[in-house]
Amino acid sequence: MEFTASQIAGFINGKIIGDENAVITGVSPIERGEKGHMSFIAQDKFAEYLNTSECSVLIVSEKLLTKDSYNPTIIAVDDAYLSFQVLMNLYAEMQGRKSGIESNTHIHETAALGEEIYVGAFTYISEKVKIGAGSQIYPQVFIGKNVKIGKNCKIFSGVRIYDYCVIGDNCIVHSNTVVGSDGFGFQPSQDGYSKIPQLGNVVIEDDVEIGANCTIDRGTIGSTVIGKGTKIDNLIQIAHNVMIGQHNVIAAQAGIAGSATIGDWNQIGGQVGIVGHIKIGNQVKIQAQSGVNSSVKDGEILYGSPAISAGDFRRNYVHFRNFSEIVKRIDNIETNSKDQTNE
Amino acid sequence: MEFTASQIAGFINGKIIGDENAVITGVSPIERGEKGHMSFIAQDKFAEYLNTSECSVLIVSEKLLTKDSYNPTIIAVDDAYLSFQVLMNLYAEMQGRKSGIESNTHIHETAALGEEIYVGAFTYISEKVKIGAGSQIYPQVFIGKNVKIGKNCKIFSGVRIYDYCVIGDNCIVHSNTVVGSDGFGFQPSQDGYSKIPQLGNVVIEDDVEIGANCTIDRGTIGSTVIGKGTKIDNLIQIAHNVMIGQHNVIAAQAGIAGSATIGDWNQIGGQVGIVGHIKIGNQVKIQAQSGVNSSVKDGEILYGSPAISAGDFRRNYVHFRNFSEIVKRIDNIETNSKDQTNE
Amino acid sequence: MEFTASQIAGFINGKIIGDENAVITGVSPIERGEKGHMSFIAQDKFAEYLNTSECSVLIVSEKLLTKDSYNPTIIAVDDAYLSFQVLMNLYAEMQGRKSGIESNTHIHETAALGEEIYVGAFTYISEKVKIGAGSQIYPQVFIGKNVKIGKNCKIFSGVRIYDYCVIGDNCIVHSNTVVGSDGFGFQPSQDGYSKIPQLGNVVIEDDVEIGANCTIDRGTIGSTVIGKGTKIDNLIQIAHNVMIGQHNVIAAQAGIAGSATIGDWNQIGGQVGIVGHIKIGNQVKIQAQSGVNSSVKDGEILYGSPAISAGDFRRNYVHFRNFSEIVKRIDNIETNSKDQTNE
Repeated sequence: MEFTASQIAGFINGKIIGDENAVITGVSPIERGEKGHMSFIAQDKFAEYLNTSECSVLIVSEKLLTKDSYNPTIIAVDDAYLSFQVLMNLYAEMQGRKSGIESNTHIHETAALGEEIYVGAFTYISEKVKIGAGSQIYPQVFIGKNVKIGKNCKIFSGVRIYDYCVIGDNCIVHSNTVVGSDGFGFQPSQDGYSKIPQLGNVVIEDDVEIGANCTIDRGTIGSTVIGKGTKIDNLIQIAHNVMIGQHNVIAAQAGIAGSATIGDWNQIGGQVGIVGHIKIGNQVKIQAQSGVNSSVKDGEILYGSPAISAGDFRRNYVHFRNFSEIVKRIDNIETNSKDQTNE
Repeated sequence: MEFTASQIAGFINGKIIGDENAVITGVSPIERGEKGHMSFIAQDKFAEYLNTSECSVLIVSEKLLTKDSYNPTIIAVDDAYLSFQVLMNLYAEMQGRKSGIESNTHIHETAALGEEIYVGAFTYISEKVKIGAGSQIYPQVFIGKNVKIGKNCKIFSGVRIYDYCVIGDNCIVHSNTVVGSDGFGFQPSQDGYSKIPQLGNVVIEDDVEIGANCTIDRGTIGSTVIGKGTKIDNLIQIAHNVMIGQHNVIAAQAGIAGSATIGDWNQIGGQVGIVGHIKIGNQVKIQAQSGVNSSVKDGEILYGSPAISAGDFRRNYVHFRNFSEIVKRIDNIETNSKDQTNE
Repeated sequence: MEFTASQIAGFINGKIIGDENAVITGVSPIERGEKGHMSFIAQDKFAEYLNTSECSVLIVSEKLLTKDSYNPTIIAVDDAYLSFQVLMNLYAEMQGRKSGIESNTHIHETAALGEEIYVGAFTYISEKVKIGAGSQIYPQVFIGKNVKIGKNCKIFSGVRIYDYCVIGDNCIVHSNTVVGSDGFGFQPSQDGYSKIPQLGNVVIEDDVEIGANCTIDRGTIGSTVIGKGTKIDNLIQIAHNVMIGQHNVIAAQAGIAGSATIGDWNQIGGQVGIVGHIKIGNQVKIQAQSGVNSSVKDGEILYGSPAISAGDFRRNYVHFRNFSEIVKRIDNIETNSKDQTNE
């Protein structure tokens, strides 16, 4: 990364105050600005950094500017946050998409690969796999037989996709995530547990992003489904036959047990557990570490393990924090009552 | 998968009602039946699907049949659930076991590989490794030196097995699980923590299945042991020197800390934590998200964090849910008591 | 491993009682001693094993010896625990560091590799990577472009390090851990969530050890930092822009949300969750499964979800366990009070 202030101003239609030739080679958070870096100021509470930042270039919302010159080169724009996002997206695109098939891959002759695809070294692509145009499969990925991957996907190093799974367009799957491992199903008997074959698959719809080291089990029969636009953080467990709708956000280390159904636009916090076979509606918020063990209606906000209404949980927890005091009050009442009785 | 109704009826000794040439190419859960798919009905509560299912073929428990003909082709059997399991197992076997050693593997010349073994591309097998007959080692697996793997195992892509670990017969280990990484042991001093060498190993007995992305640490000295027939879900942590007995079932994201001992036939729920150096008996059930911090006798059922008897936890939690009401009752009593005192 | 008692005594300057030619081929925990193995006794409570152990050689603290001869060969030392640690470290070093570059690697021509480095087969090293002298990169590792790794590091099989991340000297990263995957940042709109580019990196300072299957996300802008000497167990989530200081110990399955700041010398228990944007001081202890949702001062000990002072939590939880009894007391008071009123 190496840009001049005037190049940057050009991208976002900004007005330069200071040295238009100032060069930046990186970006910093505003609280830890570095020389040669760029940052942005969009809120009043960060305006002090206009005078103190070590950054060489600052993108600043016009309304926050009060002086004619500053130490860093200023690029004045309408909304600095928005302009910064535009820049970051531009930069991410500039990083370039990889293409071409590296040597030392294992690609079955029956696999059908789209145009402008990237396949990294040591990646294994099984029979009858289909991968859409523009998708990037990083090194050391495993793709089982009959898997379909759509267009413009990015599958990072170490991802494993078991047989027959389906991934839509524009999906991102981060390193070491496993898609389509066997669901956890066993038949108990006196001699032990015998395996129930897991013959379904996983279907991931378009525009889904899945973090690193997640596990998404295949359906026993039928599919485990992750709906369009849903975003999944790291180290998350999605069990067999879970059905997740569209535009959900699921934070790290959450787990969803078998055959649970999740609607649309829900926010599920970190380390949340959701038991099997229940139904979560739409626009539900579940606070971190909660344990949801019964179905949930649209729009509810839940907290606790087992989870109840978040407002109730917080009110009750205040009392839990004072439980010793509350018990002392009961002790006192009893003592007083005995005193009265003794009188 | 492509079978006719008459082929299927032959496998399970069923009676066909309808078109014996109906072809199925997949299976569906009964609630989401698809044309060209097969499903089953074994319970009265699903009997309505006899009339409404889109499936082309249904395996149905005889006693649920009331009419002479249905839209889908029916295969009548004694117990549809059992027959369906038989079919699924047959099908899973048909999928075929892989065999042969693919090109582009790294196999040390001192490794001893049994007959009819499969080794996928990019798999690394170190010196003095022994692998029993019929085992399938998928692509991109790492096997450290002196590791022993028994017969008929299935080690999926991306599994890492550190030096000296031992795996029995008929074991399944899913993708990206790590067996034998160093236990978490450090000696504190004023300057920091210094590493305590982890010189033991992991021993996995016969018939164990381990899910994806689990971590099973080697013993500091001696072994971390997972007993015969135990089944472990995804993203589970087993720390150094844990001893797990036979036929346990451990759900996703549970964690067991160092040197804990677990008996036989226990059921450990998802996201459960078990602290180090305690002893869990046999046939214990631990509810999801519980935290067990002291030893547990045979047959107990636990819930909560820290975990107590599940019955007690549930009863107490009902009061927690009403805590605000309970505090109001105490407020009232105090007010009344003051009133009386004032009288 | 094969040593005689006299060789071992030589390493730790011990005095042999018994057969100096006794051979050991392994080590056992004292509770499960095996013939041909060595163990140690440093505490009075294990002194009984002097008479009953199956071990061939025991290292024993001198003060615990009361007889002239024992069944196993004894190596008497001042402090058996310390001497055993010395031996284990010696042995770990003897295991030998790997060196050399195996065939079947993918190393970009612009990568700069230090002396006496090891690179295992199927490892992928991208452009402009720098790796310091003596570092060992095991098979099947992925290292993105411009990554820097210091001296004497050990990066186990299956680790993924994304572009631009930096790892210091003497670090250990266990299998399948992901360093530098994208932070979980999305801009919501009516149409769905759009990705906020994650353009920062991860900086891991010297002497850090990270367990297996962890995920450490890159900063959105700026770095996610793990300070010198910090030790991280397995399956841990460190979100974007988290700043972790020096000499922390973080147990398995803990998760730290975005932009949290952690000081020095803290102990964070297993399955703990720490919410984003808060500040944990120094020498804080957080009990397993706790959920920390506000900033924490130096030296505090926390427990519960949400976490409060551990002492308070324990006292309050005792009342929670007796909640049914407490409610009965309130019932009684109310009944008595009504009785009085009725009188």
